[in-house]
Amino acid sequence: MFDNSERTNLEELGEFGLIRHLTEAISLSQPTTVKGVGDDAAVLDFSNKKTLISTDLLLEGIHFDLRYVPLKHLGYKAVQVNLSDIYAMNGMASQITFSIGLSSKFPLEAIEEIYEGALLACKHYQVDLIGGDTSSSAQGLVISVTSIGYVDENKVVYRNGAAEGNLICVSGDLGAAYVGLQLLEREKKIFLENPNIQPDLEGKDYIVERQLKPEARRDVIELLDEKEILPTSMIDISDGLASDILHICSQSKKGCKIYEDKIPIDQMTFDTAFEFGLDPTVCALSGGEDYELLFTISQNDYEKVKNLMDITVIGHITEEAAGCELISKSNKVHPLKAQGWNAFNKSE
Amino acid sequence: MFDNSERTNLEELGEFGLIRHLTEAISLSQPTTVKGVGDDAAVLDFSNKKTLISTDLLLEGIHFDLRYVPLKHLGYKAVQVNLSDIYAMNGMASQITFSIGLSSKFPLEAIEEIYEGALLACKHYQVDLIGGDTSSSAQGLVISVTSIGYVDENKVVYRNGAAEGNLICVSGDLGAAYVGLQLLEREKKIFLENPNIQPDLEGKDYIVERQLKPEARRDVIELLDEKEILPTSMIDISDGLASDILHICSQSKKGCKIYEDKIPIDQMTFDTAFEFGLDPTVCALSGGEDYELLFTISQNDYEKVKNLMDITVIGHITEEAAGCELISKSNKVHPLKAQGWNAFNKSE
Repeated sequence: MFDNSERTNLEELGEFGLIRHLTEAISLSQPTTVKGVGDDAAVLDFSNKKTLISTDLLLEGIHFDLRYVPLKHLGYKAVQVNLSDIYAMNGMASQITFSIGLSSKFPLEAIEEIYEGALLACKHYQVDLIGGDTSSSAQGLVISVTSIGYVDENKVVYRNGAAEGNLICVSGDLGAAYVGLQLLEREKKIFLENPNIQPDLEGKDYIVERQLKPEARRDVIELLDEKEILPTSMIDISDGLASDILHICSQSKKGCKIYEDKIPIDQMTFDTAFEFGLDPTVCALSGGEDYELLFTISQNDYEKVKNLMDITVIGHITEEAAGCELISKSNKVHPLKAQGWNAFNKSE
Repeated sequence: MFDNSERTNLEELGEFGLIRHLTEAISLSQPTTVKGVGDDAAVLDFSNKKTLISTDLLLEGIHFDLRYVPLKHLGYKAVQVNLSDIYAMNGMASQITFSIGLSSKFPLEAIEEIYEGALLACKHYQVDLIGGDTSSSAQGLVISVTSIGYVDENKVVYRNGAAEGNLICVSGDLGAAYVGLQLLEREKKIFLENPNIQPDLEGKDYIVERQLKPEARRDVIELLDEKEILPTSMIDISDGLASDILHICSQSKKGCKIYEDKIPIDQMTFDTAFEFGLDPTVCALSGGEDYELLFTISQNDYEKVKNLMDITVIGHITEEAAGCELISKSNKVHPLKAQGWNAFNKSE
């Protein structure tokens, strides 16, 4: 994915040289950052706010395939995925640490691209990169991100606060990242069989971008705040709508009804899913990696959300004994099952 | 390193099953932990303290060799190494996130052992495990730890505060972890050549333990606080005394004089270094992984440290132009050079 003609050898540079080189481009903007990179630990000041912490590990061959993920996108996505967890607590992300392990066979320019993507995400989301670790790896590429954020004590939204009668809302649209992945996998296969054929992704920008360059929904958190809506529970959709609503229901000890015809699916996702012989609803339920926000609100807040373009009400919370159900377009009732992406049985 | 007779397959358990299983053993004890594992992010409350964050990535084949590192020790050490950075800011560590990536060929019992070691370290150091990520890995074992701690605003100790005339102090003794590593490497070689020969580590407990099970110096931070000593600068010795004092000097824009005869080296380290044809002083200067604290204090504090058994004054800070020097036992002057362990040129 990178041009090998300009190679700077990592061994020449050494670990400290590399860290110096990479961290030169960092500028700090958060008032909560007292000290960033350059000491044993970073120093932060959240005074009267609660601190939020989330961490993710991204491993080559499991979470990404360098044959179709550009390195800059990878750095960008690694940050997004992790910030998304802070927003899902109704908080604002303010800092990240970003660690990379990679084989010394990679040139400096490869790490620079990953780092550039990470810093672009930081800039876009106004978070400071305050630390990290850089190491050689005996095998593949390893990225570890920890996000730090803050929230007022009375505004933290957990997964366990959904109450009977609450409306279930979702931001944006679902299933696109999964369909985008199918497209990239198909083009990879064609390319491996015949390297002269150029990938045919024309007109599919939206779904390819949803896979390669997802955007965490900071804007939704700001919108909810502006409209004075405090969700009763919230989670980000990383494993698929089904798996994630089940997390909310099990932690809240409640059931739910989701209406298939309400699930927001983009037209291109819909059409491309059909091309692949996939049910678009299944892509939305079990595809994952959408990084949209799934949350529940009191019925009293319905008037506030009903005209928000980017928020869709897709069902409601029921009592625990009623179970978790999907009501299909033909009015059939199906139990909701988590069939989301599972890092331990990818082959299934 | 683990008994293969009792194997629980990770694929059967799945990611969520595994997380549930592993996190059952977690108990929270820190008043600053509002919410630990189980939501999108952990929630912490540091009220009027500054927050400290540090992160480390540990990769199989680079930072550890599973042929002689027991998994439980590995989990323990991964936590220690990271807590050490929080103490080096003069702070108290309060939480960690702990992420593991490993091949699904490892049985559940292997992860349990790593996790058990990590939790033992948490218990020992009174920190809460509040989150993490667990994933399959296409390559080797990957561990990522982020530590979180706190400190009063006026007590943060950076690397850049050393002043001319300050005394340079070090806790404990140096070089043992490196000599311990040589011992383990030798026994590994012998074992690979003839698996019937039992490893001969008799009487070498101290230095083997310094390598396999280092202890971060929380006690030193407490001692300094009790004696009302506020260091002017501090760092933990992870890369070796030479590399780490150079960090303090370059960030403080100062020079230093270190006296070889003052460097604390344990007798067993000394004798075993000679067995290997190594200069014990070089082991202390460039061996690394001691996780002792290196700090500078005002001369006015000399009376307070001089009788502390575990603290040794090894030199003093000079003006920048004087450079960084080692005064040998035979009174020769050598420029100090960083030859510490470098993750990018291990082969040298």
